[in-house]
Amino acid sequence: MTFDYIPSLLKPSESKIVLLLLDGLGGLPVAPGGPTELEAAKTPYMDHLAAEGALGQIIPIRPGITPGSGPAHLALFGYDPLKYDVGRGVLSASGVGIHIKPGDIAARGNFCTLDNEGKITDRRAGRIPNEEAAPLVKKLQAIKVPGVETEIKHVKEYRFTVVMRGKGLDDNIADTDPQQIGVPSLPVTATQPAAKKTAALFQEWINQANTILADQPKANGINLRGFATNPNLPQYKDIFGLKAACIAAYPMYKGVSRLVGMDVLDVDGDTPADEFQTVRQHWNDYDFFFVHIKKTDSTGEDGNFDAKIHVIETVDEALPGLLDLEPDVLVVTGDHSTPALLKSHSWHDLPIMLSARTGRFDRVTAFGETACLGGSLGRIRHVDILPLALAHALRLTKYGA
Amino acid sequence: MTFDYIPSLLKPSESKIVLLLLDGLGGLPVAPGGPTELEAAKTPYMDHLAAEGALGQIIPIRPGITPGSGPAHLALFGYDPLKYDVGRGVLSASGVGIHIKPGDIAARGNFCTLDNEGKITDRRAGRIPNEEAAPLVKKLQAIKVPGVETEIKHVKEYRFTVVMRGKGLDDNIADTDPQQIGVPSLPVTATQPAAKKTAALFQEWINQANTILADQPKANGINLRGFATNPNLPQYKDIFGLKAACIAAYPMYKGVSRLVGMDVLDVDGDTPADEFQTVRQHWNDYDFFFVHIKKTDSTGEDGNFDAKIHVIETVDEALPGLLDLEPDVLVVTGDHSTPALLKSHSWHDLPIMLSARTGRFDRVTAFGETACLGGSLGRIRHVDILPLALAHALRLTKYGA
Repeated sequence: MTFDYIPSLLKPSESKIVLLLLDGLGGLPVAPGGPTELEAAKTPYMDHLAAEGALGQIIPIRPGITPGSGPAHLALFGYDPLKYDVGRGVLSASGVGIHIKPGDIAARGNFCTLDNEGKITDRRAGRIPNEEAAPLVKKLQAIKVPGVETEIKHVKEYRFTVVMRGKGLDDNIADTDPQQIGVPSLPVTATQPAAKKTAALFQEWINQANTILADQPKANGINLRGFATNPNLPQYKDIFGLKAACIAAYPMYKGVSRLVGMDVLDVDGDTPADEFQTVRQHWNDYDFFFVHIKKTDSTGEDGNFDAKIHVIETVDEALPGLLDLEPDVLVVTGDHSTPALLKSHSWHDLPIMLSARTGRFDRVTAFGETACLGGSLGRIRHVDILPLALAHALRLTKYGA
Repeated sequence: MTFDYIPSLLKPSESKIVLLLLDGLGGLPVAPGGPTELEAAKTPYMDHLAAEGALGQIIPIRPGITPGSGPAHLALFGYDPLKYDVGRGVLSASGVGIHIKPGDIAARGNFCTLDNEGKITDRRAGRIPNEEAAPLVKKLQAIKVPGVETEIKHVKEYRFTVVMRGKGLDDNIADTDPQQIGVPSLPVTATQPAAKKTAALFQEWINQANTILADQPKANGINLRGFATNPNLPQYKDIFGLKAACIAAYPMYKGVSRLVGMDVLDVDGDTPADEFQTVRQHWNDYDFFFVHIKKTDSTGEDGNFDAKIHVIETVDEALPGLLDLEPDVLVVTGDHSTPALLKSHSWHDLPIMLSARTGRFDRVTAFGETACLGGSLGRIRHVDILPLALAHALRLTKYGA
């Protein structure tokens, strides 16, 4: 919907937008009445921005829905993930740094355990650790399927990604995982006639894999699911008129950024300061910079309240490196909440701060979950961020006469 | 959407609703931390209403979208402008006081400059001033097209409106403006077979116009675009059960009001006090009064912060003339923001105040952008105003048993 009316409103501008994303930023207090991680962190630069900026709350996707990283980033980038479906295979491939082009087919793979009748006894192969799984993935790289190119990469524990490239491939293929034990894996089946050839090629790949794995004690079978190709998302240049760059340390975020047409820039180092330095180096080359900070999420998932505070403080300390560039619009927010209390992603609203000369002032003087409740941006959705950023950057003309 | 469920809930009532619209009401502070125009204005009557009323914020259309006057008023009247499309030709005609009935076709016209091969060298005829354009429009009034009636009115500089009335006309016609120079104007072309006759009639009109203008130095050609007829919007009486009147000084707002079925009342004078006096004169004749104050917008577009303050204060001073009538519901808001800082319409949220005996009290004691952030109406959209006004006027029964 965003894309129906935005492109016709775009006007040329030299203005610069920075979207600073602290992954899993939203938090929860350890005890009722206490501060969240963000509220407990000492963030003088962010608080100064808050005092002169417009604050608000973000609903990621829909109330009550905890987003995975893929959908959360799509939403943040302006694409309602309930409308724009990026297949699991493509997200999984993005997560390990494989870019899926239109026509390439990606699938998620699981090692599983089969009994001597070929029936599944464990759908996750005893959750074999990385040390055991990685060498098996290496063995599977030997597979050759005539007429196509295949690539396999380990993801984590019993999970991997497999990609097939060639002419005339089609992703309308059903999962082979029967979602229960005591039965064999399903054959690779096309759900549309056009995918019959592709299904046969993947079946051949699985047959060779099963032969290679036959003597393994636990991981002697595999299942593939989430077959998908590049979803041909509308591109940033076309829908938002932005030459956009992604600065991120982790493959997953680089991958989703590429899908929407961002250039992915190399970072020398992995600290917030290193990422901001990359923005500086390329400041004249782009209109829009997406800067991704990962460790707020990983410390939250570890349940480490204090470590998450520390990461936020590290970002704040480095912030002058970004502010010196005087972006016309700086948005600071997260993709979802990852409260240390829950040790996982959560559905809670997120704080957002928009700093721009064109912003509506409010009375919020600190950047935190509770302070943001009174902000002038109100309670918006992820997909509203880009239109608001473009508006504040004076990149949109008015709608209608 | 609004209209799906409202009509079946309507119940008879003698209650009166006044919608007082300060065009471009929303503003921005000159410097961070300062007051907006509305916050800087001395408005004792509005502040008194705020102390006893329900306050909130309005999103005009969608986050980040700056509305033109036409879409903004449609939204304010309850019609989502992304759903109800009023063609540019009709809005343009409304803007100069021509009412387009169903079947009439209106188009926006531009004077342009043609070289001796008939190619466009300037799509806006050197932006000729009103003094040069108005006499040319007068010359074009001589055009006669057999079988139909035509009307032309000057808008501003190089722009005019042309209307055709007759039997069997159809507005599915493409723009003649090629949107570039160095090429001739496009012929008038039907985009649907039913519009072929209409296209030929407009071509005849253009041919005559070109002949009349042939010896002009700059404005020797014309282009027409935005062909449209009356969109047959659902009417106020039918969807909201309201006998509605419009009190406005400018043609544009009268025009849009007519499209939704309001009667347009004559005002003796053009001050807020004059407009309120018109409401008094017709108090017993209508259920709903839309009162439009224009100068908050025009002073904002001039970038004149102090003049906008003064207009707001003038409205406040005149307010007792309205309050004496004791309307059951008084809504005070704007159609969009026009911050003097930006000298243009903007996308920012607007303050709204609803004063009614049936309102939910809140802690807001002044009418201003920041104060409204804490109001009990929360953050609503323009299209929510009419249902809320009807509810507070006790004009709606409950939905379902």
